[in-house]
Amino acid sequence: VNAPPAAATKHPSEPIAIVCGGGALPAAVADAALGQGRAVFLLGLEGWADPDTLRRYPHAWVKVGQLGRGKRLAAAAGCREVVFIGTVLRPAIRSLRLDWTALRLLPRIFRIFRGGDDHLLSGFAQMVQEHGFRLVAAHEVAPDILAPVGALGKLTPAARDLEDAERGFALIDAMGPFDVGQAVVVADGRVLAVEAAEGTDRMLDRIAALREDGRIKSARGVGVLVKAPKPGQDRRLDLPSIGPATVERVNAAGLAGIVVRAGAVQVADLSVTAARADAAGVFVAGLEATRGPA
Amino acid sequence: VNAPPAAATKHPSEPIAIVCGGGALPAAVADAALGQGRAVFLLGLEGWADPDTLRRYPHAWVKVGQLGRGKRLAAAAGCREVVFIGTVLRPAIRSLRLDWTALRLLPRIFRIFRGGDDHLLSGFAQMVQEHGFRLVAAHEVAPDILAPVGALGKLTPAARDLEDAERGFALIDAMGPFDVGQAVVVADGRVLAVEAAEGTDRMLDRIAALREDGRIKSARGVGVLVKAPKPGQDRRLDLPSIGPATVERVNAAGLAGIVVRAGAVQVADLSVTAARADAAGVFVAGLEATRGPA
Repeated sequence: VNAPPAAATKHPSEPIAIVCGGGALPAAVADAALGQGRAVFLLGLEGWADPDTLRRYPHAWVKVGQLGRGKRLAAAAGCREVVFIGTVLRPAIRSLRLDWTALRLLPRIFRIFRGGDDHLLSGFAQMVQEHGFRLVAAHEVAPDILAPVGALGKLTPAARDLEDAERGFALIDAMGPFDVGQAVVVADGRVLAVEAAEGTDRMLDRIAALREDGRIKSARGVGVLVKAPKPGQDRRLDLPSIGPATVERVNAAGLAGIVVRAGAVQVADLSVTAARADAAGVFVAGLEATRGPA
Repeated sequence: VNAPPAAATKHPSEPIAIVCGGGALPAAVADAALGQGRAVFLLGLEGWADPDTLRRYPHAWVKVGQLGRGKRLAAAAGCREVVFIGTVLRPAIRSLRLDWTALRLLPRIFRIFRGGDDHLLSGFAQMVQEHGFRLVAAHEVAPDILAPVGALGKLTPAARDLEDAERGFALIDAMGPFDVGQAVVVADGRVLAVEAAEGTDRMLDRIAALREDGRIKSARGVGVLVKAPKPGQDRRLDLPSIGPATVERVNAAGLAGIVVRAGAVQVADLSVTAARADAAGVFVAGLEATRGPA
């Protein structure tokens, strides 16, 4: 993050391929690259990337699993560096549209599909690199998409919230070897929820439902959503992210706010996220690791 | 578990007080005590214990929080030993019907209400003992309520299921210091869910919902519900439990079966649970800890 973004890439005179999932982050990365005078070529993942976003840039569409097609398109556009950004949920192996390149790799694909998400992503990253591309982290191109240190909006976490946040960070660290989630909810020292396959949004909806049903009895305005990358996670492929919708859900869940690991969590629409937090009366804060990033 | 049950209690000639929450386990414990020639006195927790069950034994009713009343009733019945058994969800502090004894302890009650369930229960256990009672584990009176080693029904876990189970046990151990849940779901090496405030039933319902929505894509018949006590948990007060309803939900969630830590998880209606498992085509198995109970 401290190095100048241009230095992070090895071929700044070539267009960079941006493989796009859902959400607002792909456009943020493309705009950052263009702002640095770098050409871009967007590869939209069908069913995930936003067509209106892609239309604004040189682009093509691929299905998840079309490794050969993606490789040919990127090479034809003159790209040797590739960024992965945006939301893609773990696909079912039987729903993948595998092309010939992918089919030849099938035994390996089956192998990497066993295990957690990190395992899946690191296996995928290795395949991409063996096909001659250099994998570049989205935040190397667009450092501004990462949560800064401190509060995004006007509100700041209280001492009690910071205690809950530290407990959450420690729990995410402890679960690291198990490749579980990147988010937990802690209220007054008690762990209310741990994210796994359901994702952050559904975990927050669960908190709201449990509160309504009387299963969570802590007062409204107590409790923190804590997000951080898993220790050892390949940060070029999958950083946790938050955005305006996360703020809405944290508010609906009756929590006090969001604490993320600064510099290691993506924020979609930073200014909109800050404005929503202020409007909802919740805090969104980036905290530095006291003992270095995991 | 290996010691004869009668030896586990210090006052076998006196009636034993059984503080009863919900479910089938309170009757199992009362019957086991009666079978050993031990008199019983049941204290039903209003809103939790089953009135039809209590009616079959000498009993009285108390509200959660009526420490003084519970103490007086148990002492008047000649009890010096007390067992806690059955389901009681963490109450809201403002919903407790605190009597004078409890009110005098209020600062302490507030203190023990901060933090996780273990913290709550161990604080409570200490208060009970300071009031002159000896806390006896339900399985000291009724060892048969604990899951035995091996399969309960006809089906047994395959090698793949055992791998998932070991991963689940290791995760529960790793989360121990955080006083989170006692149950996780692992499928093909991937952690699908971690139980926290929602409890096991809702966690299993979530798996079923995620599968229906396409968020969980592993095949039906893959994946294991893993339950074990948290390391360091006071086993006299709160052991994890399963029963026929758990089997139904595991089946609805499309999992292969249930693996619990043998001798450390309570099974409500053992024979009914086994029959349901056979009917549903899922396994329920107790596994011994390879490196001793945590």
